Amino acid sequence: MNSIEMLREFLKDTIRLKIDFRTSDQSRGVPMPPMEQPTRSDQVRIALADPLSFLPLGAKTPVSEAIARRRSRRNFSETPLTLEQLSFLLWATQGQRQPEKKTPHFRTVPSAGARHSFETFLFINRVNSVTPGLYRFLPLSNELALHYKTDETIESTLSAAVLGQSFVARAAAVFVWTTIPYRMEWRYREAAHRVILIDAGHVCQNLYLAAESIGVGTCAIAAYDQQAMDRLLGVDGEDQFTVYLAPVGKTVNNEEHNQS
Amino acid sequence: MNSIEMLREFLKDTIRLKIDFRTSDQSRGVPMPPMEQPTRSDQVRIALADPLSFLPLGAKTPVSEAIARRRSRRNFSETPLTLEQLSFLLWATQGQRQPEKKTPHFRTVPSAGARHSFETFLFINRVNSVTPGLYRFLPLSNELALHYKTDETIESTLSAAVLGQSFVARAAAVFVWTTIPYRMEWRYREAAHRVILIDAGHVCQNLYLAAESIGVGTCAIAAYDQQAMDRLLGVDGEDQFTVYLAPVGKTVNNEEHNQS
Repeated sequence: MNSIEMLREFLKDTIRLKIDFRTSDQSRGVPMPPMEQPTRSDQVRIALADPLSFLPLGAKTPVSEAIARRRSRRNFSETPLTLEQLSFLLWATQGQRQPEKKTPHFRTVPSAGARHSFETFLFINRVNSVTPGLYRFLPLSNELALHYKTDETIESTLSAAVLGQSFVARAAAVFVWTTIPYRMEWRYREAAHRVILIDAGHVCQNLYLAAESIGVGTCAIAAYDQQAMDRLLGVDGEDQFTVYLAPVGKTVNNEEHNQS
Repeated sequence: MNSIEMLREFLKDTIRLKIDFRTSDQSRGVPMPPMEQPTRSDQVRIALADPLSFLPLGAKTPVSEAIARRRSRRNFSETPLTLEQLSFLLWATQGQRQPEKKTPHFRTVPSAGARHSFETFLFINRVNSVTPGLYRFLPLSNELALHYKTDETIESTLSAAVLGQSFVARAAAVFVWTTIPYRMEWRYREAAHRVILIDAGHVCQNLYLAAESIGVGTCAIAAYDQQAMDRLLGVDGEDQFTVYLAPVGKTVNNEEHNQS
């Protein structure tokens, strides 16, 4: 096991001054890795709502109010989310900021060097007109791609993968962010990794505020069984693996507990 | 230098299943470390505006609009910030969510286990009625504590500490977040470190949206000279050190470049 001292070193930016960035893959002319994983031709794709059309969804809640009300919510109602609500949350967390400008590196969240190392997976349980299953968000085309359909057994499998935090698997949908670290390493080499985690925080905080603004609750989950979760997503655990997750569901009125 | 493989391991939650949390300092009955560093009795303290009174500041901008407009801004006007604006940004990033309830672990941002490992330092250049200097935010009493006054030489010193990104030192104020990792290690041992970085992302994303909502711009900075920055703050670089920073200043109209 790593010592505490080594782990603390990882938090620092000391490594930057030791790196010769002329030797990065980017500097050496290696082509930029794709910003979005390709889909297979047999994957079902679902169009999401147009970001510009659903801006009014969050238009009622001012930033200050969303920040003041935000809390980690673990108690969700049985009400499904609409596809429009889910589209809003996906746009707020990884969508293109100005899709009409076709600048896929400019997202609704900042990322070190605009690298955006994440793929967003979604376990969908209760979203209107969407068959339950594991999906992946395609930010460049604003679609969902189906990875596999799920049945009622997903609840226990997913609960086990989040170490028994059973409220997660009962949510309307569960966001699971994986990182493809090479997207960041291509530019930053050994300085890539600390900023990948910081980026995960950017994404999840936008989820908190966007969700709060439309009466949806969420709770960031950093504790999970790495191998089990990666296996559930079908990612290899080396070049792509889970870094963070968050269930979402309609907020139950008067939920005042679990306030972290 | 660490290999890429080791650095990738740090991003994963694999370590959690190897830790016996019964041996954490918390489980062994070691008292919880303080949530806020004490001040010396000779430090000047400045009262900040009451969070409940300045909520209307951000009331005009809906969450969806702040998310759509947010970008990294590196071009600031010479206009000073008001103390009320700065108070709003400090509250949004590390303040108590409901100060009247006296629950200092519940902040405007989530933190793993409500540990909140950060201290917020501020280089203040142009904030109305505040003498330029290095300050620290005291979230429990909603005050600033003066560490030292600065003169015009701070611009070059601070620029050097951010590796020549000179726009940082010219901002109205610069947020610098340090971590005190023991606050997180006390509960989570070797699982503390990855979530500290994720937490830094939560904080900075709230800064982006809160700033955007009041016509203030910011730009997250993850690249800095660790030793130089820690020395400027007067922290030891071992039990407390810089993890992230962000300059803030009034937005210049029509600034459309630097969009990450």
